[in-house]
Amino acid sequence: MLRSHHCGALNENNTNHEVVLAGWVQKVRNKGFIVWVDLRDRYGITQLVFDEERTPKSVYQQSLKLGREDVIQIKGKVIERESKNPNMPTGGIEILVSELTVLNASKTPPFTIETQTDGGDELRMQYRYLDLRRKPIRENLIFRHKVTMAVRNFLSQAGFIDVETPYLIKSTPEGARDFVVPSRMNSGQFYALPQSPQTFKQLLMVAGFDKYFQIVKCFRDEDLRADRQPEFTQIDCEMTFVEQEDVLVQFEAMIQHLLKETKGIELGAFPRMTFATAMEKYGNDKPDIRFGMTFGELNALAQNKGFNVFDAQELVVGIAVPGGAGMTRKEIDGWIEWVKRPQVGAKGLVWVKCHEDGSYKSSVDKFFDSEDLAQWASVTGANPGDLIFVMAGATQSTRSQLSALRMEIAEQMGLRKPDEYAALWVTDFPLLEWDEESQRYHAMHHPFTAPKKENLEDLEKDPSKAKANAYDLVLNGNEIGGGSIRIHDTALQEKMFGLLGFTEKEAQDQFGFLMDAFQYGAPPHGGIALGLDRLVALLGGSETIRDFIAFPKNNNGRDVMINAPSALEDAQLEELHLKSLPKDFS
Amino acid sequence: MLRSHHCGALNENNTNHEVVLAGWVQKVRNKGFIVWVDLRDRYGITQLVFDEERTPKSVYQQSLKLGREDVIQIKGKVIERESKNPNMPTGGIEILVSELTVLNASKTPPFTIETQTDGGDELRMQYRYLDLRRKPIRENLIFRHKVTMAVRNFLSQAGFIDVETPYLIKSTPEGARDFVVPSRMNSGQFYALPQSPQTFKQLLMVAGFDKYFQIVKCFRDEDLRADRQPEFTQIDCEMTFVEQEDVLVQFEAMIQHLLKETKGIELGAFPRMTFATAMEKYGNDKPDIRFGMTFGELNALAQNKGFNVFDAQELVVGIAVPGGAGMTRKEIDGWIEWVKRPQVGAKGLVWVKCHEDGSYKSSVDKFFDSEDLAQWASVTGANPGDLIFVMAGATQSTRSQLSALRMEIAEQMGLRKPDEYAALWVTDFPLLEWDEESQRYHAMHHPFTAPKKENLEDLEKDPSKAKANAYDLVLNGNEIGGGSIRIHDTALQEKMFGLLGFTEKEAQDQFGFLMDAFQYGAPPHGGIALGLDRLVALLGGSETIRDFIAFPKNNNGRDVMINAPSALEDAQLEELHLKSLPKDFS
Repeated sequence: MLRSHHCGALNENNTNHEVVLAGWVQKVRNKGFIVWVDLRDRYGITQLVFDEERTPKSVYQQSLKLGREDVIQIKGKVIERESKNPNMPTGGIEILVSELTVLNASKTPPFTIETQTDGGDELRMQYRYLDLRRKPIRENLIFRHKVTMAVRNFLSQAGFIDVETPYLIKSTPEGARDFVVPSRMNSGQFYALPQSPQTFKQLLMVAGFDKYFQIVKCFRDEDLRADRQPEFTQIDCEMTFVEQEDVLVQFEAMIQHLLKETKGIELGAFPRMTFATAMEKYGNDKPDIRFGMTFGELNALAQNKGFNVFDAQELVVGIAVPGGAGMTRKEIDGWIEWVKRPQVGAKGLVWVKCHEDGSYKSSVDKFFDSEDLAQWASVTGANPGDLIFVMAGATQSTRSQLSALRMEIAEQMGLRKPDEYAALWVTDFPLLEWDEESQRYHAMHHPFTAPKKENLEDLEKDPSKAKANAYDLVLNGNEIGGGSIRIHDTALQEKMFGLLGFTEKEAQDQFGFLMDAFQYGAPPHGGIALGLDRLVALLGGSETIRDFIAFPKNNNGRDVMINAPSALEDAQLEELHLKSLPKDFS
Repeated sequence: MLRSHHCGALNENNTNHEVVLAGWVQKVRNKGFIVWVDLRDRYGITQLVFDEERTPKSVYQQSLKLGREDVIQIKGKVIERESKNPNMPTGGIEILVSELTVLNASKTPPFTIETQTDGGDELRMQYRYLDLRRKPIRENLIFRHKVTMAVRNFLSQAGFIDVETPYLIKSTPEGARDFVVPSRMNSGQFYALPQSPQTFKQLLMVAGFDKYFQIVKCFRDEDLRADRQPEFTQIDCEMTFVEQEDVLVQFEAMIQHLLKETKGIELGAFPRMTFATAMEKYGNDKPDIRFGMTFGELNALAQNKGFNVFDAQELVVGIAVPGGAGMTRKEIDGWIEWVKRPQVGAKGLVWVKCHEDGSYKSSVDKFFDSEDLAQWASVTGANPGDLIFVMAGATQSTRSQLSALRMEIAEQMGLRKPDEYAALWVTDFPLLEWDEESQRYHAMHHPFTAPKKENLEDLEKDPSKAKANAYDLVLNGNEIGGGSIRIHDTALQEKMFGLLGFTEKEAQDQFGFLMDAFQYGAPPHGGIALGLDRLVALLGGSETIRDFIAFPKNNNGRDVMINAPSALEDAQLEELHLKSLPKDFS
């Protein structure tokens, strides 16, 4: 071992001990006759001291040449500091160095290895191994480790078995696009990387494993949006002989456990909210319920009062901005511009100031009197001093626009506190969504989700009405997990594939093994998958998942550090019976 | 929840309780007026009873139709059995059923779901979800879960951080063949799936993570031998500021812990053996040391005595088979035929019987007298009653042939007891191997392995002489892990790539990021990777890894259950800018 202690270990109790430390030079302070060096490793920082009087001359001379990020090993004696730093575990001592070995000198790093660095995103990604040396990123990854260990131990103690499912599986065109892997031994054939272990975990239930979990990489070849990764990690779980409520109770307990273990926060029972309510009250199926501003629907109050902008629309809906009555005209105009941005796409905003004295001032005073506006205030929950913003339009898009506004206002008002946690279950999702482009239904969750028993008839009559035994787990306005009770009999699964536009042959080719399995005693089962990257980020007080992944890819799916993907050697392609085509070929 | 208890939970203490159970019908015994059903789940078997007198008539009638592997839910009362089965936790009770629901009927399974099944390998692989219902396979996978949890908790408590490294990385032609993944967004470019996270874990050390571990899937596109999988799981570990001994001590402790935790076995300190000694005494770098039959080299004693077969050879070497003097001539001939098989490839065997009365009888009595043979016995450690087998030939091949013979004899004599464990470290491996075909050196371990300090000069003068800071962990004659102290400076790494025949450009293209990283303060580091599949199998008392993998591939790399790999749709290939060529194109 090249050290006797790590850099976070020593304190006054070690005074006069001879120690050997190794680590990185964080900082050098040269006072002319005395040199202090902060020596850093994963565990902390220990101060080294070299001085003209007490340090052997050659060692002192060496110390003058040390630079940032040099890796050194020192031998020395622990001495008490003259001026102690009570904020550091090692702040009471320093090491009077007697021997110094430079294990590996460092070039000057391209950015500072500090909590606040001067490095830009691109540079930090290219030198990710240096970025990872920075304390916040290091702590994020150590935190991730703690979360995964807590998850594993919690689930294991609850009787879940960690089973590894395969990575080289079969491509299925349903859902997102697969990454594929050409098979050298089977010319013209390909494996696919799993988008999730969905069918395998269901087979494990058929196999009687009863409770399964896995923390597993999944892959989706999608056009990347900010903060989406082509490979991501899932906490994947499945249970047998359960109903929806059993799954909710089990994983509510897990999230409560995680918050307790990692943050010391006790979270009460999670509210349950139907999809319909979430859309109506928050315009969103993953509402952030840490703050109010719930939607108030104003159709009955605001239509047919002569204001044409409202009359023709499907939905008129508003929110109350707490304390917003004090906004200047300019600020209000700012918000109007904000909702008109193409990313939001609203046409505009009607506003109503609810003054402290009980009077109202609005952009639609011509059409609505104080009595009208008082009713709006009542429906949107606006108090004196608040501001009401109102939108109108097609139901779905208007809800989504007002939801975006609600979230942005909350963000700017500091209502989305990263250290405050509120989770809820959203339930009763529609089973199917109609897709105009492909003129067919898509599974809202996935094709294996069971409809609610009371909706089995709807599948025949009006499939769009059927609700699913599906549920999402939402934390602080982010979907962190979703699951469902699954179909477990062949006939219903076949019907579902039919509704989704599969021919019998397609269903058989792609999922025949699952439908076969259902014929040999498949038990009722259901489960959930949680997005680990996002969960860890949220628990870590951030919404940026990239800071919680050791080696993330950029928005083009590239690893700029190792320069992947990259071209293959011709011989490799030949072995795979493949030819690359120019990009504009197809 | 569809049950109040699982099928392993109930005993006499529950007598008279009303319970709800769900599970699979393991067995139905119909005595005419009474029907017993064994109900099975992951946790055990509970006996159900339906009889003409006490069971509602319709329920009794239903019970007559139950078949193997039907999934049922029952309600009933726990009653004490008349004839108890003390070998089962639930053997004292049975359930007098009052309600029966068939949750899912099963077709007759294609093979019996019993510990000893009548299903062949192919059929069991095709219906793996049924094979997984069999108790031994289920227990293997639950055992695997316990091992991985024990590994994770042990390493976590020892300060190791679990860090996920990426799966979509860069192809490097060195080593085994990569599986590759075409990039849709980067035409003509490919990711590769990792053969191991080697470079990433080294970067984590450069990043200061100090101690890393990961239980991670790795991929090698090799022609498959029996019991080798294209995707396999590794316990991957790395440590900073360590020397070889530190790594050995840490992972010796881990294996001892695993054996204690999972088997209750206390294993003493692991012997250390150099590669040279292992080859000399066992003809093998992964010796099974649970039994003797170590090699005795006989060149000095057996050459130049007129027996031409020995004189011309590089090596004459023998082993003593305990109690082998009693072998018949036919048995000895059987062994001679065995070593002549092409898989072994020896030319023959000389044999010497060491009789209890101190006399000798050999196949070479014409050339060697009793005094000679007594010396052979002394060198091979043969006692009265033993048999000596002797081989001669080129050193390397002869050792390997005699090693094969030693292992097969031990196997047949029952000396390779699956419940007896002996581990050792093999050290001091050569750094490089000369490859005649490519006329260049290959890295014996991998290109990142550090030579021993005292061999740095040899790298210039005679690279073949250099030894590596590399080590293998061997358990019961199987290599279960291997590792090394790594190179951590750019100059030495460049020199190593040069020795391995990389041009500067190739080295830079493939591993430039690593050599760059070494310039920014790379600490000394080393690590190890253990094959989880094999480790779990050995701890589980088997050498067949396939029985410890939930969904293994067959020897052609196929998953016959899901039928993967398979053809893609044309549109998928087009999106990837690829064209499949006929197999005989290249």
